Amino acid sequence: MTERLYLFDTTLRDGAQTNGVDFTLADKLTIARMLADLGIDYIEGGYPGANPTDTELFAQDRGVGATFTAFGMTRRPGRSASNDPGLAMLLDAHADAICFVAKSWDYHVRVALETTPEENLASIRDSVKAALSRGREVLVDCEHFFDGYKANPAYALACAEAAYKEGARWVVLCDTNGGTLPNEIERIVGEVVETVPGERLGIHAHNDTEHGVANSLAAVRAGVRQIQGTLNGLGERCGNANLMSLIPTLKLKREFSERFDIGVSDAGLASLTRVSRRLDEMLNRAPDRHAPYVGPSAFVTKAGIHASAILKDPATYEHVRPESVGNKRDVLVSDQGGKSNVLAELARVGIAVDKDDPRIGRLLDVMKEREAIGYAYESAPASFELLARRVLGDVPDYVEVLKFDVTVEHRINALGERVTATVAVVKVKVGDGEPLISAAEGIGPVHALDLALRKDLGKYQDYIRGLSLTDYRVRILNGGTEAVTRVLIESLDENGDTWTTVGVSPNIIDASFQALMDSIVYKLIRSGAPA
Amino acid sequence: MTERLYLFDTTLRDGAQTNGVDFTLADKLTIARMLADLGIDYIEGGYPGANPTDTELFAQDRGVGATFTAFGMTRRPGRSASNDPGLAMLLDAHADAICFVAKSWDYHVRVALETTPEENLASIRDSVKAALSRGREVLVDCEHFFDGYKANPAYALACAEAAYKEGARWVVLCDTNGGTLPNEIERIVGEVVETVPGERLGIHAHNDTEHGVANSLAAVRAGVRQIQGTLNGLGERCGNANLMSLIPTLKLKREFSERFDIGVSDAGLASLTRVSRRLDEMLNRAPDRHAPYVGPSAFVTKAGIHASAILKDPATYEHVRPESVGNKRDVLVSDQGGKSNVLAELARVGIAVDKDDPRIGRLLDVMKEREAIGYAYESAPASFELLARRVLGDVPDYVEVLKFDVTVEHRINALGERVTATVAVVKVKVGDGEPLISAAEGIGPVHALDLALRKDLGKYQDYIRGLSLTDYRVRILNGGTEAVTRVLIESLDENGDTWTTVGVSPNIIDASFQALMDSIVYKLIRSGAPA
Repeated sequence: MTERLYLFDTTLRDGAQTNGVDFTLADKLTIARMLADLGIDYIEGGYPGANPTDTELFAQDRGVGATFTAFGMTRRPGRSASNDPGLAMLLDAHADAICFVAKSWDYHVRVALETTPEENLASIRDSVKAALSRGREVLVDCEHFFDGYKANPAYALACAEAAYKEGARWVVLCDTNGGTLPNEIERIVGEVVETVPGERLGIHAHNDTEHGVANSLAAVRAGVRQIQGTLNGLGERCGNANLMSLIPTLKLKREFSERFDIGVSDAGLASLTRVSRRLDEMLNRAPDRHAPYVGPSAFVTKAGIHASAILKDPATYEHVRPESVGNKRDVLVSDQGGKSNVLAELARVGIAVDKDDPRIGRLLDVMKEREAIGYAYESAPASFELLARRVLGDVPDYVEVLKFDVTVEHRINALGERVTATVAVVKVKVGDGEPLISAAEGIGPVHALDLALRKDLGKYQDYIRGLSLTDYRVRILNGGTEAVTRVLIESLDENGDTWTTVGVSPNIIDASFQALMDSIVYKLIRSGAPA
Repeated sequence: MTERLYLFDTTLRDGAQTNGVDFTLADKLTIARMLADLGIDYIEGGYPGANPTDTELFAQDRGVGATFTAFGMTRRPGRSASNDPGLAMLLDAHADAICFVAKSWDYHVRVALETTPEENLASIRDSVKAALSRGREVLVDCEHFFDGYKANPAYALACAEAAYKEGARWVVLCDTNGGTLPNEIERIVGEVVETVPGERLGIHAHNDTEHGVANSLAAVRAGVRQIQGTLNGLGERCGNANLMSLIPTLKLKREFSERFDIGVSDAGLASLTRVSRRLDEMLNRAPDRHAPYVGPSAFVTKAGIHASAILKDPATYEHVRPESVGNKRDVLVSDQGGKSNVLAELARVGIAVDKDDPRIGRLLDVMKEREAIGYAYESAPASFELLARRVLGDVPDYVEVLKFDVTVEHRINALGERVTATVAVVKVKVGDGEPLISAAEGIGPVHALDLALRKDLGKYQDYIRGLSLTDYRVRILNGGTEAVTRVLIESLDENGDTWTTVGVSPNIIDASFQALMDSIVYKLIRSGAPA
């Protein structure tokens, strides 16, 4: 027999407190729909009255599934529930549920709230009663519960009990400062369930010691049946418990999957990587490459010794199947790896070669040499493919570069303004044709070179017309006087395909030019341009 | 009575398998010194023989403290220890300790190693014996230990026992695929200590379910006395157990600090944030803002109910003091918060200014504008000081730049070789003097500009004679067509002082020139050069 475990998402409330995150109303609605589609039980939308966005969000029904929840404070000390404008705004909010935040540490009651422990208990009871009378499902977040419990267990318990006895559906135990460790969580929850049954308890954990997920699961082991968390672990300081890690563990790890059901289906689970990336896009953040389950590198192997085993049987080095969470497996080429990595990568890019072909050994040697001076083929698969094809002897000499130069000139113009002009000139020979010379101005030297290089490639011009440079990254290796520059360039073509190339040189312009040329040659090969 | 708990860092070996990470030999040496200074007991440097960088790293002693460890495989099945070139390379490596990776899952022994369980045990024993006879401290990493134990506990235990009985100092239990949960770790380790004593056991956890840190500590609770991890949690896939989170928890949380001593001192702990950022800089990665303890946002509170409480008593919303890990508290309330930061920073660089001076508000505005377009004053204190002095009106116009240009020319010379020539010309006016024009050739455009700029500054030449550029870092912000380049330059003078300046522009040459000019002006101010 399995038990139901409920998921409560607070991306739109606690997650909105993340440094650097600012949700618009449209963002909040989009995210709420994503959460409902995913199968999250409760969506905490925000704090009506605290800011214009949240007030508007709760001004009317939104047509979003799940139990849409408004967050706010219990009635203020010394007021009645019917005479508290903050509470009134919360009760009037269009919401299925109300989550009250209540103090449960007597020290905070005195210092921050400046009232008595008894008045705080009365405030919890009155607020729960008022919300129930308006037909809302009620949750009470016991702020600082664990720190409060360690300082005064009787009082912290009294707060939880007051909420429970008054009829709150959920009493949520919050590790507000995020400093509690899993063993303490498990011990304290084990004591709390003597007073409030586990099926009425929730856990709200933060990640300040990197235990947000572990603390949530420790609480479940001890009896709680609701977990609060956020998408991608968003949240103030170090963030909240990360639902992107919790959901797969609950669904895929036997310790939990055999005991619990959650609202997320297998199809929901398979959408998880997409949901995670979608949120990053909305926030204009690069995805955390190493995020558990959903990160772009979560199922990527670099080591040589592992790569050959993965090719034999992926399960040998994967704790779950990447497809189960909508992610992908990849095996990287690099000087860490060996022949089997290279063979896997060749197969992936569609180059058929026998595994005993002596050219594989030569390719491996060339790669190791070049990686030792700074080339990074795992980051630039298109340059890897070109290198492989060159060693295997099947890249035509499409274009010969006879010369290029770039000039950056900074001066004061006739109006007394400082201006910078950047010009590049490129001279190439295409096949047996006459040399072609092109010039272009750019915002910077690489931009100018890129424009000049792609201006006239004779008979190949049609093949590269749709090409554009979409990203440019630079790293200075070694540093100091022996500095070497590594440039990575990402290109995009008219079909929406993207690829990354690399160049390395002590001279940043040279390095950039190599990466630009690799990108063009790659595109010519892909397009089937004739030699 | 406290017990000693040992820390083993594998940033340079397992961390080097991180997707996107490529350490040079110089990187590895710098990181090794950082780790030794921090108080890490064991530093795993790499895998001699696997790639040129690691082979060179172990070719001679490095003068780095801590127990410097080489990683490699046990002898190959079917060979004797004295007739295995891989093992010989490992035994010949200049290392204090050798860490062997050994299979401990019988399935892997058969499928991946293609040998018998008995031969694998013999290989473990022979390898340990060979390394001990060469005077090395020996560690044996039992790969897939937990998955292996679940499938065949007797065999996994036999592998651990073979290593222990043969005299390995440490038997390290690896959760290679990272899929094991804390309760399983604790239960299995609890069983293993019946055979191998805890003071001879280590734990090597990965973060695939976001339990890298929790699993390491669960193992310590069950008896292991060595933790393996990496700086910033680097590592393949989702990374290894993060030492940046483990170290503060071990030193600051009573559950561990009362029971264990580690090699990291309080001063080491206070350097942790700096160590974390330094690694990110070397990797040219933005720090993880939300990283526990050391992240830029780890102690940052956004406007709201918590902020005023924090101002009353920081401990109410902080689980540890930020200073203890070298981090900083910040409350993003209003300009007030910003203002106090700026005042603190001005005091730090020795600029005395009244806190109600209206120029502080202006400085704050200028800083916000400039940081919004990409300047990073936190990383470039010398540029911050210059900006502040300019707004406060006390920077003389030492040097006026009338014009500069840089040309990079790439061509084929008379011998048919490809050559690149880089020349910079700079024209400046110093005081009321005649314009001075200088030219220089360099390895790259910034090098050439730097040389030309410092060639002749007239009456200031003596002040800058000892100046040199020691580091140059570039980051492309935004990416794509709106890309902006941020350049950070580190300079060194004849007194051994170093400082960092910043420049930002869509044109990398412009950005570099700004940072170079800032560096020179900073040096002139510091030297007390007359206007």
